[in-house]
Amino acid sequence: MNLIAERRIRLLSAIINDPLNMKLPGKIAIMGGGSWATAIAKMCLAQEDSINWYMRRDDRITDFKRLGHNPAYLTGVKFDVKRINFSSNINDIVKQSDTLIFVTPSPYLKAHLKKLKHKIRDKFIITAIKGIVPDDNVIVSEYFTKEYGVPPENIAVLGGPCHAEEVALERLSYLTIACPDKDKARIFARRLGSSYIKTSVSDDVIGIEYSSVLKNVYAIAAGICSGLKYGDNFQAVLISNAIQEMNRFLNTVHPLNRNVYESVYLGDLLVTGYSNFSRNRTFGTMIGKGYSVKSAQIEMEMIAEGYYGTKCIKEINKHHHVNMPILDAVYNILYERISPMIEIKLLTDSFR
Amino acid sequence: MNLIAERRIRLLSAIINDPLNMKLPGKIAIMGGGSWATAIAKMCLAQEDSINWYMRRDDRITDFKRLGHNPAYLTGVKFDVKRINFSSNINDIVKQSDTLIFVTPSPYLKAHLKKLKHKIRDKFIITAIKGIVPDDNVIVSEYFTKEYGVPPENIAVLGGPCHAEEVALERLSYLTIACPDKDKARIFARRLGSSYIKTSVSDDVIGIEYSSVLKNVYAIAAGICSGLKYGDNFQAVLISNAIQEMNRFLNTVHPLNRNVYESVYLGDLLVTGYSNFSRNRTFGTMIGKGYSVKSAQIEMEMIAEGYYGTKCIKEINKHHHVNMPILDAVYNILYERISPMIEIKLLTDSFR
Repeated sequence: MNLIAERRIRLLSAIINDPLNMKLPGKIAIMGGGSWATAIAKMCLAQEDSINWYMRRDDRITDFKRLGHNPAYLTGVKFDVKRINFSSNINDIVKQSDTLIFVTPSPYLKAHLKKLKHKIRDKFIITAIKGIVPDDNVIVSEYFTKEYGVPPENIAVLGGPCHAEEVALERLSYLTIACPDKDKARIFARRLGSSYIKTSVSDDVIGIEYSSVLKNVYAIAAGICSGLKYGDNFQAVLISNAIQEMNRFLNTVHPLNRNVYESVYLGDLLVTGYSNFSRNRTFGTMIGKGYSVKSAQIEMEMIAEGYYGTKCIKEINKHHHVNMPILDAVYNILYERISPMIEIKLLTDSFR
Repeated sequence: MNLIAERRIRLLSAIINDPLNMKLPGKIAIMGGGSWATAIAKMCLAQEDSINWYMRRDDRITDFKRLGHNPAYLTGVKFDVKRINFSSNINDIVKQSDTLIFVTPSPYLKAHLKKLKHKIRDKFIITAIKGIVPDDNVIVSEYFTKEYGVPPENIAVLGGPCHAEEVALERLSYLTIACPDKDKARIFARRLGSSYIKTSVSDDVIGIEYSSVLKNVYAIAAGICSGLKYGDNFQAVLISNAIQEMNRFLNTVHPLNRNVYESVYLGDLLVTGYSNFSRNRTFGTMIGKGYSVKSAQIEMEMIAEGYYGTKCIKEINKHHHVNMPILDAVYNILYERISPMIEIKLLTDSFR
């Protein structure tokens, strides 16, 4: 079979599998108003004429329009607000959009989606959420399939390593877009690429989602150790053991010929585990210093997603029995109120 | 065959292979006077009654005895100098010792050894040198075998991740001792262990030596990128690509069923690549900022071993043809005077 014939068959089968013949990316909507949402909006507007943007709070939208930047996050990034159609009505935004990029904190996702009256099964969904849906204990891509009937081939995940703060500064960053249909991933990869964003594609949606959750757990662990005054030598040992633990977990829950040295796995762990921007690491540091979970959360005025991720992965691992000493230690500290000093001391004996 | 019989045969064969029936560790000598040498001396003296210590400069020895600490490095670490037999005469020290821990900078090793009149083939050699012997382009363990007839089973290598500065502060650190004869490695592992030092053993002498050299090259690369104002997102991508490059090289020059996520490989790369203590990283940062190699070396008043390591690995790789874009970029910048901006820009295109 020659190449042209092959190409034709692929195109045809794409249309058959995709009876709605969806526009890709069509109109893009950003679903969320935080710093990562703001960074993604900036990336999208480098190529798109205009975007839709769902934000929960009307006062934020008003301020955004008046100031020309997000009033609360990445305030240095200026936007041409005429190119943005803001709304606090999720149904209006969904109706007018083909591609929805979800980028709310995972604990709030369900509350946003509950307001949905419009179907989303004919949309292309990109999740840039690094977390698991609490209570349901499923990763976000699975949740969209299970609860909203979105077929897996129309769900992509956006992976790091990428601090929003550095995107704002246009510092060179690498993103990975994963979708079971790699051709669709490629369309978005091209759309997000720019002079300071390099993109690559993958089909490991599940692995990348789980690794995004786990790296937050490990960032909390790194913070706890730092709060307990463990040094750089130990942090390096912790991270080396963390990537091995992540590898064991991924190979059990979703066996695949993946290479966890790649930047979307290891790099994302590094950028979070070693970063002072990371709220998960900051949260862990406070716990290590002796704050209670509650007082650390009050002090930070925000949620460290790894707090929920820890519980979810712990639950999921009850079925898989993967050896995860770091996860277990963080869980015991956060949920069983066992002293960080004792838990980390025990952990050090399992390392090499 | 029962276990006791097996054990007897192993012991017998150990004696046959080792006709000198060497004392292990017997009397230990530290060969070198820098910060890592000082940290190792501190570790040894936790269990040994006394040690021998070879230092090149008599004035340093005099000051050391007077002050009770190394006058130039880790000055906060107090020693009971009555338990140390210092000498600037390498032959005296070698004669009186059974185990020699070499810990000079690799570029100076040959100059020290040239003064040797005493044979060392009946000694146990531990190399804590992270480098390659310049001109000869062989790793240190190979050099001792080739030039001094020390059999490989009597050579061990001491691997990190371990900043001397943190050993001085008694912060928990992990060391790996590798020797083809793992029983010998275990003897030293037990001797070096303490409340703040955890040890493990390995037989991958060559892999650990090469990885120690390469991590310095990659620390220079990390420094160059930092000097050029690349951010944390990119550093994470660089390190992810570096560990993969290291893995390719090790699997080619010394194929073995190793796991480069282990802390002795990845952890050592992390602690150097992310550390502000690292002179290799500092050297790289100056190069990235526009210093010439010469002026950076003058400014630092010390040698960044990765500078020599870069050239050596480049030479060695001429026979192996491993794809090593990071090594090549650092080599081109340091030895071909190609602009760091151009080389790193090219490098960014090879990453993902």
